[in-house]
Amino acid sequence: MPYVNIKVTGGSEAPTVEQKQELIREVTQLLARVLNKNPATTFVIIEEVDMDNWGVGGESTTVRRQKAKAQQLT
Amino acid sequence: MPYVNIKVTGGSEAPTVEQKQELIREVTQLLARVLNKNPATTFVIIEEVDMDNWGVGGESTTVRRQKAKAQQLT
Amino acid sequence: MPYVNIKVTGGSEAPTVEQKQELIREVTQLLARVLNKNPATTFVIIEEVDMDNWGVGGESTTVRRQKAKAQQLT
Amino acid sequence: MPYVNIKVTGGSEAPTVEQKQELIREVTQLLARVLNKNPATTFVIIEEVDMDNWGVGGESTTVRRQKAKAQQLT
Amino acid sequence: MPYVNIKVTGGSEAPTVEQKQELIREVTQLLARVLNKNPATTFVIIEEVDMDNWGVGGESTTVRRQKAKAQQLT
Amino acid sequence: MPYVNIKVTGGSEAPTVEQKQELIREVTQLLARVLNKNPATTFVIIEEVDMDNWGVGGESTTVRRQKAKAQQLT
Repeated sequence: MPYVNIKVTGGSEAPTVEQKQELIREVTQLLARVLNKNPATTFVIIEEVDMDNWGVGGESTTVRRQKAKAQQLT
Repeated sequence: MPYVNIKVTGGSEAPTVEQKQELIREVTQLLARVLNKNPATTFVIIEEVDMDNWGVGGESTTVRRQKAKAQQLT
Repeated sequence: MPYVNIKVTGGSEAPTVEQKQELIREVTQLLARVLNKNPATTFVIIEEVDMDNWGVGGESTTVRRQKAKAQQLT
Repeated sequence: MPYVNIKVTGGSEAPTVEQKQELIREVTQLLARVLNKNPATTFVIIEEVDMDNWGVGGESTTVRRQKAKAQQLT
Repeated sequence: MPYVNIKVTGGSEAPTVEQKQELIREVTQLLARVLNKNPATTFVIIEEVDMDNWGVGGESTTVRRQKAKAQQLT
Repeated sequence: MPYVNIKVTGGSEAPTVEQKQELIREVTQLLARVLNKNPATTFVIIEEVDMDNWGVGGESTTVRRQKAKAQQLT
């Protein structure tokens, strides 16, 4: 009866439909295998978060990606 | 002071504005009636989840709906 | 296929087992009635939050309750 | 290693990119200062909720804003 | 940079420390393999929910387990 | 009308009552200052997560803390 919520960055980094199907299938199988949970009542919800709305290290992902790119160019 | 988060499938299955108003009103009344909670500080947040992003039984809702439809046609 | 998460204050304000059963039953019926959702795949998760850990108006619920009580005594 | 999720109303009330950067930076600094948490592993996720989907006092924010506006006109 | 939240029933059904380590390791590897996500910034949070607080089909898990048990005895 | 959910490690790393009051007060002020949000309808919920239940980099925080400690001893 597990509930799994997966948040990832969206926009240009959003997972494809196929990748989402793979995540849903494999997370469900993992919970069946490790915890013997029934797939019929396993929920997996994927949320795609705008890169301006996700911060790590005090900076949005948008800014982090720009800095990483700038560094590669130097 | 309750906080209620309701996730439902969106897209073609998304609730209408009227249905969302009804949900908000009735959930708030329910918490007032059962737990004596103050409506003024009861939050209800409805989230509409893309059918590709919601899995049950190891499959996305998109795939489940397609299978259910195919089965009805046979 | 809805997922409902209800957060309420716990500790001395925690709902009883009967109140929780009532909430689960009625929220599930509400979603079936308003949105035609299947109860078999409706999840309701109730979380009881410590009053020190829930803030409104910039103050914890513990402090708010103390102030409300003090005001009643004057 | 904190995880912070901030939900605010979106649409015409959505925060700007600059406001979101400020929130991310300041919440991260706050957790470093008060709890000595490492910014490098502090996640801040901002979610913008449609005003039809956020209820307080049994009414959606859309309805509340309309009533507040109507009251100002009288 | 994914964030994964896994809710499972707790109490007598709670996962062991080893099962939780396995879940954390495998979910992190899954996100690295399918979406090329960096494990260093992948968060996995497991929440154990009291069986009285988790409802499916309009009934708490406690009640569902009792009914399943009673049915096996007949 | 914001809703803020802060998850931090609990157990031996749990914030004190005073630290939680400070977090609640300052996050509420931050949202008032940056986004002009009304403190009266700002919710802050702090959740303390067991170190066995929080994974980063594919390992639980318990394991990470042990490794960090072992490294300091060598």
